[in-house]
Amino acid sequence: MRKGRVTIPTDENYVEGTRIIADKWGADAVRDCDGTHLPKNAKELAEKVYNTYFVVRGDNAWADKHTDELQSVLLMTGHTLATDTTLTIELLKGYSRDQLGVNEENPKKYWQVFDRTTGEEIASWEYVGGGYVRIDGTKPYHEYTVNFFATNLWDSTQMYNYITNNWNIEKHKVMEPRFEATFEHIKDNMRKWCDENENVNVVRYTTFLYHFFLVFNEINKEKHVDWFGYPMTASPRAFDAFEKEYGYVLKSEDIVDGGTYHNNFVNPTPKFKDYMEFSEKYVTRTVRELVDIVHAEGKEAMMFLGDSWIGTEPYGDYFKDMQLDAVVGSVGGGVTVRMLSEIPHVKYHEGRFLPYFFPDTFFEGNEANAIAELNRNWVTARRAMMRKPLDRMGFGGYLALAAEFPGFIDRATEICDEFRSICDAADNAKPYSGLTVAVLNAWGKKRSWMCHMVAHELWYQQVYSYQGVYEALSGLGVDVRFISFDDIKKNGIDKDIDVILNVGDEGTAFSGGDYWADEQVVTSIRKWVAEGHGFIGVGEPTAKQMGGKYFQLSDVLGVDREKGFTLSEDKYNIEKKTHFITKDVVGDIDYGEGMKNVYALNGADVLDIDISPRFKRNVNVGEVKLAANDYVHGRGVYIAGLPYNPQNARLLLRAMFWSCHKEAEIEKAYSTNVVTDCAYYPESKKYAVINNTFEEQKTTFYDVNGNAKELVLKPNDIVWIQE
Amino acid sequence: MRKGRVTIPTDENYVEGTRIIADKWGADAVRDCDGTHLPKNAKELAEKVYNTYFVVRGDNAWADKHTDELQSVLLMTGHTLATDTTLTIELLKGYSRDQLGVNEENPKKYWQVFDRTTGEEIASWEYVGGGYVRIDGTKPYHEYTVNFFATNLWDSTQMYNYITNNWNIEKHKVMEPRFEATFEHIKDNMRKWCDENENVNVVRYTTFLYHFFLVFNEINKEKHVDWFGYPMTASPRAFDAFEKEYGYVLKSEDIVDGGTYHNNFVNPTPKFKDYMEFSEKYVTRTVRELVDIVHAEGKEAMMFLGDSWIGTEPYGDYFKDMQLDAVVGSVGGGVTVRMLSEIPHVKYHEGRFLPYFFPDTFFEGNEANAIAELNRNWVTARRAMMRKPLDRMGFGGYLALAAEFPGFIDRATEICDEFRSICDAADNAKPYSGLTVAVLNAWGKKRSWMCHMVAHELWYQQVYSYQGVYEALSGLGVDVRFISFDDIKKNGIDKDIDVILNVGDEGTAFSGGDYWADEQVVTSIRKWVAEGHGFIGVGEPTAKQMGGKYFQLSDVLGVDREKGFTLSEDKYNIEKKTHFITKDVVGDIDYGEGMKNVYALNGADVLDIDISPRFKRNVNVGEVKLAANDYVHGRGVYIAGLPYNPQNARLLLRAMFWSCHKEAEIEKAYSTNVVTDCAYYPESKKYAVINNTFEEQKTTFYDVNGNAKELVLKPNDIVWIQE
Repeated sequence: MRKGRVTIPTDENYVEGTRIIADKWGADAVRDCDGTHLPKNAKELAEKVYNTYFVVRGDNAWADKHTDELQSVLLMTGHTLATDTTLTIELLKGYSRDQLGVNEENPKKYWQVFDRTTGEEIASWEYVGGGYVRIDGTKPYHEYTVNFFATNLWDSTQMYNYITNNWNIEKHKVMEPRFEATFEHIKDNMRKWCDENENVNVVRYTTFLYHFFLVFNEINKEKHVDWFGYPMTASPRAFDAFEKEYGYVLKSEDIVDGGTYHNNFVNPTPKFKDYMEFSEKYVTRTVRELVDIVHAEGKEAMMFLGDSWIGTEPYGDYFKDMQLDAVVGSVGGGVTVRMLSEIPHVKYHEGRFLPYFFPDTFFEGNEANAIAELNRNWVTARRAMMRKPLDRMGFGGYLALAAEFPGFIDRATEICDEFRSICDAADNAKPYSGLTVAVLNAWGKKRSWMCHMVAHELWYQQVYSYQGVYEALSGLGVDVRFISFDDIKKNGIDKDIDVILNVGDEGTAFSGGDYWADEQVVTSIRKWVAEGHGFIGVGEPTAKQMGGKYFQLSDVLGVDREKGFTLSEDKYNIEKKTHFITKDVVGDIDYGEGMKNVYALNGADVLDIDISPRFKRNVNVGEVKLAANDYVHGRGVYIAGLPYNPQNARLLLRAMFWSCHKEAEIEKAYSTNVVTDCAYYPESKKYAVINNTFEEQKTTFYDVNGNAKELVLKPNDIVWIQE
Repeated sequence: MRKGRVTIPTDENYVEGTRIIADKWGADAVRDCDGTHLPKNAKELAEKVYNTYFVVRGDNAWADKHTDELQSVLLMTGHTLATDTTLTIELLKGYSRDQLGVNEENPKKYWQVFDRTTGEEIASWEYVGGGYVRIDGTKPYHEYTVNFFATNLWDSTQMYNYITNNWNIEKHKVMEPRFEATFEHIKDNMRKWCDENENVNVVRYTTFLYHFFLVFNEINKEKHVDWFGYPMTASPRAFDAFEKEYGYVLKSEDIVDGGTYHNNFVNPTPKFKDYMEFSEKYVTRTVRELVDIVHAEGKEAMMFLGDSWIGTEPYGDYFKDMQLDAVVGSVGGGVTVRMLSEIPHVKYHEGRFLPYFFPDTFFEGNEANAIAELNRNWVTARRAMMRKPLDRMGFGGYLALAAEFPGFIDRATEICDEFRSICDAADNAKPYSGLTVAVLNAWGKKRSWMCHMVAHELWYQQVYSYQGVYEALSGLGVDVRFISFDDIKKNGIDKDIDVILNVGDEGTAFSGGDYWADEQVVTSIRKWVAEGHGFIGVGEPTAKQMGGKYFQLSDVLGVDREKGFTLSEDKYNIEKKTHFITKDVVGDIDYGEGMKNVYALNGADVLDIDISPRFKRNVNVGEVKLAANDYVHGRGVYIAGLPYNPQNARLLLRAMFWSCHKEAEIEKAYSTNVVTDCAYYPESKKYAVINNTFEEQKTTFYDVNGNAKELVLKPNDIVWIQE
């Protein structure tokens, strides 16, 4: 048994138990947990001692004395109907009064009123006090909204936990560091805390300055949640600073955007990009001052990727300036692993695995379920770790509870060892990749592994059929890159890219919306495909109604979507063909939500089509679900939707190899069984074949020279083959 | 048994048989049929003798001598990729060479070339002859199209029949009446024909000048079919005349519109409306000259609503100018009945019922099926006839074949009698209506009962979920009107309208597209609903992404559709409620193709929602299928889709009564069983209750005073109740 790379929770009441389990698991770090305290001698338990730290919340003594220096939130009221020529709007209607107040600072300077029926900004309004705006000269039966600043009275995460757990404790207010006195106080707090926590050598920030957008409604239920949202960074102070720095006045609507708040699904405007950059620069230089204090004390600074992470943008240009030592985040599937493990400019990445050692799982008689959850989480994440491992793993909760389940402790012991063996094999070197594929959207690198997310790790009906693409990619033997339309416009397409993927619904930042009206984007990609590369579209790729087409690259994809305007045109290409791409398909393909009314153009190969009884005999029959198309020397592939499952991951892999004419290359560092994956680490000359299921599997393994070998894999097994 | 209102086919070889069946069915008219000739003594067989007449086709002797005076078709080539700085496009690629040639008249004047990647018109091109256009200065990887005039070498309907039936006869060329000599010849033909056909007293035009848009592909399969399409009216001659009449130059793109050819689903532009009007004026004044000839000979002029009907626009402003005596058309469902029976400015309307007396149905041993088809057609059409009967009915084919099936003859005898009894009861007076409802779209009156049609009567996947609304309306006890957005903008909403329906997919002329960005449209309807009226949306009503909404009247409808931009907003309104509207629902409601991602706003009542297992536990769950919403003093109702079935017709009826607060009025002239309908004719004081099924039904009948009576209806039965 080896040691290291593992963090366990501990507790002043469970010191001896910690020692025993730390020994079994090879843990070299201990951490505190909600409601527990580190033992005084924590340093004797492990090399690393983590403690959580809040930067802007939890200091109500200060907040209550400086009520003008609290954080703000930029909000829009609901659409409100005028039935007369004057209209009074209650700003906080529908919002939680426990969380939010009206920030009454200079409304005429910072707020905006819109006639949403015409889109016009309205000047004839005033704040009448008490949380109401009166608009004069309204037009009957037009709808109006007000953009305004609210005061943030209660930290969103604490509020969520408070309500969920029926707590009755002090409600954390949130300090705004843009006020000088408050920022000095924040730094003092940091220094003081370092002094008082000598036994801690890793400061686990939870997190820094600004919470992701999370506000509650009038009955304190979640109203709006956007894990990427910037409205909680906005304030009169920030707007003033922006004007000074960027030389133009930022308007509330530049962020509010009619109520979308420029979430991840909206193409970012130049102004919104400026505002993000402005926020990143501010957050990173501010946090840097805290990190410098921590470093001066000889401690490490670790960021929790959650809660108040807004403005850090780990894949942005300023993240490095914080000089963080580490990031930690929760591990759901493969996407969250890669989102964490690929963050640049930190020394190590840690994943927090499931289950939490809480009484909801760790109660008498539930050991089998606890082990099953552990296995499920591990196997789901492991695919991605074979491609880019985390550096450390950890658990949370009350270790004493886990200790009641010896079977769980034993299985976790195996997993900790397996984790270390993966880290060793990969050894921070790149595994073999058969292809380089790029996901193309409006965000590019900045939202690497962050596409099609709304609330962190939550399932959404409108998303899972696309999110499955990234989940599949997270464990496939290809290099993955995220590129933006602006990248292509500025620099063209990187020479080493074999395949481009465009994934999502029409008009969203993930499919690209108006970028498809940009001739430079369209022709660059057409030319590049024509030269012999691959283009794969999922859902409504390249969608933008224009020039008699809906998919602007319908010519490349071989399909278009019928929106009603060309029903008169007969569609005959409905014959399903066998194909390289569908070779491993057994039974029906799951397209998730799929896509309606897609038809194949002449010359494309239809690989799957829905011709159900509801399609009566008619010239316009069938919905194409999967198609492949030759385009000069390159190829296009269309997929209606791709929720994650092993068969779909294989389908995508085959589509990628086919699209760039590398079919012959697929069986290198390859395992035939679709529920297995194979990774090859050239530096350590090791192959790993993993079984992603809980049953025994047979498979044929191919090395990079195409030599085959039959393998039998035990449930969850990982088989190492030394070259 | 009574006589009249019935037309039967006859044949010079079946005179005595005709007499017998005419007597049984009470037929007072005989007609010829494809491949048959009227008997010499046809006038002795019936009061009315119909004979088909082609105006512009079938005279190849003339056409071959005047090859410059053939009709044209305005076409667009396919999107063609440039890979270099010059590109040659083959104009007729993908088109039938048997049907189409290139009309080489002055290409630079009449044709247009577009870069469809940018939308720009290109000037640097020339027609190099032989059917090819060369474009210079093309940009690599842009797509180009050419709009050009083709010569119409073969009448579309004849071509269709020819190919379908493997004919080998002369191919009918199509003469262009805009050439003076040809038009004079057409009139001469008409005069001569009248002289030669003294025994005929009804000229059955099949039809007039211009065919609906129907062109074939390179292997003579249907390529493009639009029963409403105008490209076959277009020609250099027409464009020149347009410029003279309207004072501006019409461009090919004004009709081609990127390949949609301004079909029924595209919002008509002012220029396209001008062109339609221009065509209507020309067609009607030209036909009028033929009708005058016919009338001078003491004959009636009857128009077949099919084939070359383009430019007549029976619901347009110029139709009356032709002074037609009658229209005849085929009867599918209730919609086609109403489309025919409500045409104004003719003396009578005739429906051609199914089945045709052709050998495909009338073969030995198939009598039961023939009767079943007769019953099905009759019962489907009858619902609509109870509201607005046709004046005459008829059959086609070979009467001798029908005579082989005595059971068929008997059942048809009953139906002819039932038809006459309906006509008598209705007596050209309006039946009682509980409500006045208006279908709102971009076409209004001009496309009365013609909404959501592509090829006449054909089923399309993208259409049936909306077409069911009209089919339901065709037999419900309400007055139906078709109004346009322009009507509302010009004249407001008619005082007597109780309910407005908006039905269709986003961006189409049927839901309205950009009209929903028109504040006058939006506010007029909001105000009108607020005053106490009803608004019902089906599919994507009022859809236009703008101002933070997708359904612009989401406030009225109580629902909006999630397009990905507001996934961050929590949607809690998912509890299904019992309601007046769904009172008669048994089992699941069939929404046809339905609509994805619709959610209810706060305050709306969710009447049906899809929460299937695929919606995992999440804040954003469920797709709303049916919702009801109070809006000031009025109400809105949302329905995801409404294919026709009896339960859906009832659902719509209840929604309409509920929406305008007339719930208490619904049980007047009403039959409770959803597979029955009730009509009341105040002038004749008769009620009719019809059984739309082939099984016995029980129902409770309510008279207009609300008195109830239990009824038992035999299969297909119609029960008359005299007040």
